[in-house]
Formats: sequence, structure tokens, C-alpha cells
Amino acid sequence: MKLLAVGTVAFDAIETPFGKTDKILGGAATYIGLSAAVLKTDVSLVSVVGGDFPQEYLDLLTSKNIGIDGVEIVKDGKTFFWSGKYHNDLNTRDTLVTELNVLENFDPKVPADSADAEVLLLGNLHPAVQLSVLEKMNSRPKMVILDTMNFWMDLTWDLLMEMITKTDVICINDEEARQLSGEYSLVKAAQKIHTLGPKFVIIKKGEHGALLFHEGKIFAIPALPLEEVFDPTGAGDTFAGGFAAHLAKTGDFSFDNMKSAIIVGSAMASFTVEKFGTERLVEVTGEDLKERINEFKKLTSFEVSL
Amino acid sequence: MKLLAVGTVAFDAIETPFGKTDKILGGAATYIGLSAAVLKTDVSLVSVVGGDFPQEYLDLLTSKNIGIDGVEIVKDGKTFFWSGKYHNDLNTRDTLVTELNVLENFDPKVPADSADAEVLLLGNLHPAVQLSVLEKMNSRPKMVILDTMNFWMDLTWDLLMEMITKTDVICINDEEARQLSGEYSLVKAAQKIHTLGPKFVIIKKGEHGALLFHEGKIFAIPALPLEEVFDPTGAGDTFAGGFAAHLAKTGDFSFDNMKSAIIVGSAMASFTVEKFGTERLVEVTGEDLKERINEFKKLTSFEVSL
Repeated sequence: MKLLAVGTVAFDAIETPFGKTDKILGGAATYIGLSAAVLKTDVSLVSVVGGDFPQEYLDLLTSKNIGIDGVEIVKDGKTFFWSGKYHNDLNTRDTLVTELNVLENFDPKVPADSADAEVLLLGNLHPAVQLSVLEKMNSRPKMVILDTMNFWMDLTWDLLMEMITKTDVICINDEEARQLSGEYSLVKAAQKIHTLGPKFVIIKKGEHGALLFHEGKIFAIPALPLEEVFDPTGAGDTFAGGFAAHLAKTGDFSFDNMKSAIIVGSAMASFTVEKFGTERLVEVTGEDLKERINEFKKLTSFEVSL
Repeated sequence: MKLLAVGTVAFDAIETPFGKTDKILGGAATYIGLSAAVLKTDVSLVSVVGGDFPQEYLDLLTSKNIGIDGVEIVKDGKTFFWSGKYHNDLNTRDTLVTELNVLENFDPKVPADSADAEVLLLGNLHPAVQLSVLEKMNSRPKMVILDTMNFWMDLTWDLLMEMITKTDVICINDEEARQLSGEYSLVKAAQKIHTLGPKFVIIKKGEHGALLFHEGKIFAIPALPLEEVFDPTGAGDTFAGGFAAHLAKTGDFSFDNMKSAIIVGSAMASFTVEKFGTERLVEVTGEDLKERINEFKKLTSFEVSL
């Protein structure tokens, strides 16, 4: 099946306890595309950049067979720019700069040959943009995956609710699940979010792994413990990209295959944090991914005989 | 094999968002003993109580075949009392009262028929008391398991280090592992703690599960997601008790069986938090435990074919 993903393609400037970068390639759609490319999934992006966006970055995406016909280039505009500084624990960060630029008036274009994609990943963006992409599809995709964050809960609650109603899989972190549901227990939070629309609820817990809820069933996976988390930027997007790409590639939306997709997403995210930005992700091969999945298997497998 | 455990037998008064208790049965050794009893492990306790400690609590322990010859009764003394109030998230709490009472001059007695126990669990207590119990054993036990906390790191660093040198398995939470090692990454923290003595490092992460480190290998398990955590008191002790009891019962100290023991401990702890104090733990059967372990299996099992 075909995967269509909407999200930012951007410049990031990142500071971690290990160093800092100038403006480098970033953005949710970038991580999603690169993650899907490792799985050799048929993936296309919907996004917008300015005339200042280097051709070499676009070439990088096409060299990975990522469709960029839906990435509009606003010649006289500037590309979205985000800058952030991580604290020593790498779990929290301060946003230093957010320049929306061309994102401010982003009217997403869905190319004709992407409008029938069966799997649609709506990356973290204004819910009005997410809704607009969904409306531009030829028919409702088989699987609509929504990534969002507390920011939109605070600012655009009603639009976000409308978007969530039309969502199959929602992907949020634990604090966002609590904010969205008003429940502290993540089990109760997921139950409440199911009633809003999503049949599948994924709760990302960063270094503590992820949870998947569906029809009273739960799947839990720890994160791969790493000696060094170098830069967490893009980990969530890489996760969502790997998850959606596995679903699109297999065309299997069973709970068991959703579990596999969570593992694929977690494995992909574990690469991203090893270097700055997309540096590690662009060099990951299918073989690397298989090895990493085996590490997850080893990490979590057990037998108990009482 | 035989399990000997030292720890408090105490009165607790607990307040959670769901209610509050008067003085009820508590203490690390109590939870350890009750947890081991579910596995029908040969377990004895070393502890101290005052003349105010009800005979019915002692009878409860003996009715579960928990050896209490090593529980000294100081007739004119008062039992250790702890009172705490949990915050709404149940992850943090304030200690309201700590009355050491008979614990202040606790000189642990190891009964003759317990001095050859192969597995020794040193529950969270002053490291001088833990060392003294170890010295009173006929010979070094095959497996010395240490439970400790930040409090002892702050107050009795040197003694704690001496105790850790003599430890096979150390059981601490993530913040304590960071404090003990000076490393933020838990992988690096465990590596450093290995060099202090313990061949096995268990890091308890509460609602986020647990990690086991041994010779470069890692095992990770999420906690069972619960609709309601009613009272977390004793969860860590129940975990340690179930873990140690499984090792003693099987006499198998391989990494694979340590993993099983982690699951048993996690399953036992998931019962304790369902009601106040020991209320739930005392009614758990071996069958309940088997079912809960199956839930862990379902929660964490996956297959990925790429």
C-alpha cells in the first residue's frame, strides 16, 4: 500500500549537552520519510519549504525514493525554522526560536497520484491543515494516523476534536493522553480516548517505551536502553514514520501487526537519537533495522516456569 | 533453597487520593514474607517489633508458613511506625511521621536454623544492620540481594559502599542508580555499579517497569498497566520478595532465571498496589500469580516479519 505523510520539512538548530549544530535538515515529514525509506515503503510527503531550502536536501529525499511532488516550494518565502536547547537529562528542552515562515499560510497540496494512498499519516501540525489534507484525499484512507501534541490541545481544542473523530490511530505522549482525557491512569485515559474516535491509541513514553491500546487489549514495549542519547530531536516522528510505513508495506491492520509496527517504529527511533538530527537515520539499512529488532526481542523475551 | 530476609515489621498509616487507613500492618519484611509465601518458598524473617505489636499479625505470618523465630519482640518497646501521604499522581509522597522506636537499637538475631540460608535478602535498612546480618550467617550465602535507597546514600555512604561490595544483586530505583553512579544514562550507571561489586543490577522504575543488567546483557520489562493504582506502599518490597523467593525456590541463578524472577516480582507487586497495605497481597494464590504472569506474557509478546 501507499503511505502519504503530511508534516514539516524544516531547518533545525539543536543544542544538547554534547554539542550544537547550525541550521540542519529537520521537520516531522523529513524524519517520517527517511524512516519509511529504510523499510522501502512507497512513501510521499506533503509539505512546504521556502526558496532558501537547499536543493541537496531535496535531492537527498528523492535519492531515498521519497516522493516530494507534494512538497511545495514558495520561491520568495523562508523555510520553517526551529531551534531548541536540551537540558542535561535530555528529557526536557527549551524552544529558543520558532519561525513559522512559509508554514504560516500553508495550504497543503495533495498530488493526484497520492490522493488514493491507503495509509495517511498526519504529522504534528495545526489540526486545520491535517483536516484539509484528509478532505483532499479521493476517498477516506483505510488507516488515518494522527500525531499531535499538547500545544494544539491548548490552542485549537475544537478543531483537534474534529480531527480526532476522524482518526483511526492516535499517537501522543503520556502527559498529552492525560490532558486529552482528564484521566491520570493511562488505561483509563486510553479508554476515554477510544470514545472520541481512535480505535487504536499509542502512548509514547520516550525513554520508558510505548503502549498500544485496542479493544481492551494492551501491548507494552520498553525503549531500548542506550549508553548515550545524543539528540532526541525527531525520535517521535521517526517512530510514527516507521510505524506507519510498516502498516502500509504489509497492508495488515490487525492488532498483532500493529504490535510489530510499534517495534519497527521503536527500533527506528532508537537510531535517530544516536547522532544529531537526521545524521544517523540517513545511513540506516534494512539489515541494521533487522538487527535492532532482534535486540528488542532479546531485551524483552522471557519464560517463566513456576 | 532457603530464603532469609531482614527488614522492618511495622505499623503504617497511609493516605492516598482514595482514602486513608489507621495503623495497619506494614514493613519491608512483612511484604517480602507475604510475597515469598505465595510462591511457597521456605522463607524466614529477621526483624524486631515492640510489645504493642498484635499477636494476630504474628499469627497471620505463621499461618502463611513464614518463619518468625528471627522476629524479636521487645516487650517494653514500641513498634516502628511510618505514616505517609501520597500525592494525586501516586508517584510521589510526603512522609508525615517516622517513629523508629525499637528499630533504633535493632541488633538483628539470626536463628541457628536460618544461618545457613542460601539466599539472603537484605531489605531496605541501615547498612550497618544489613552487614551485621551477613556476618551472622554460617558462611557467605550463595546469593546476597540488597535493597537500599537514597536515604542511606546521603547519610551512610561508606558503610553502604562496604555493603555493596559484598552484594550479588542490588535493587534500586532509577534516581538512586544515578545518584550511586554519578551517571545519567542507566546503561552507564549499571556498568559503574557492576564495578562496585554487584554482578546483577536491578533498576526499578515503578509504573515504567524494571531493568536487569548482567555482564553486558539487558532485560527490560514494562509494568502491568493498571486501571487504578490504589496504594503503592510496599510495591518495591513485594517485588524484591517475589524476586528472591523465585531464586530460592528454583536454586537457579542463571540470567534467564533472573529474568523469570523479575517477572514474578513484577507480577506480585502488581497485586500489592490494588488495595491498601497488605490487604490484597494476603489473599493472592499461586493460581492468581500464574494468571498474572500470563498477562505479562500477553502484554509484551510480539513477532516481527519484515
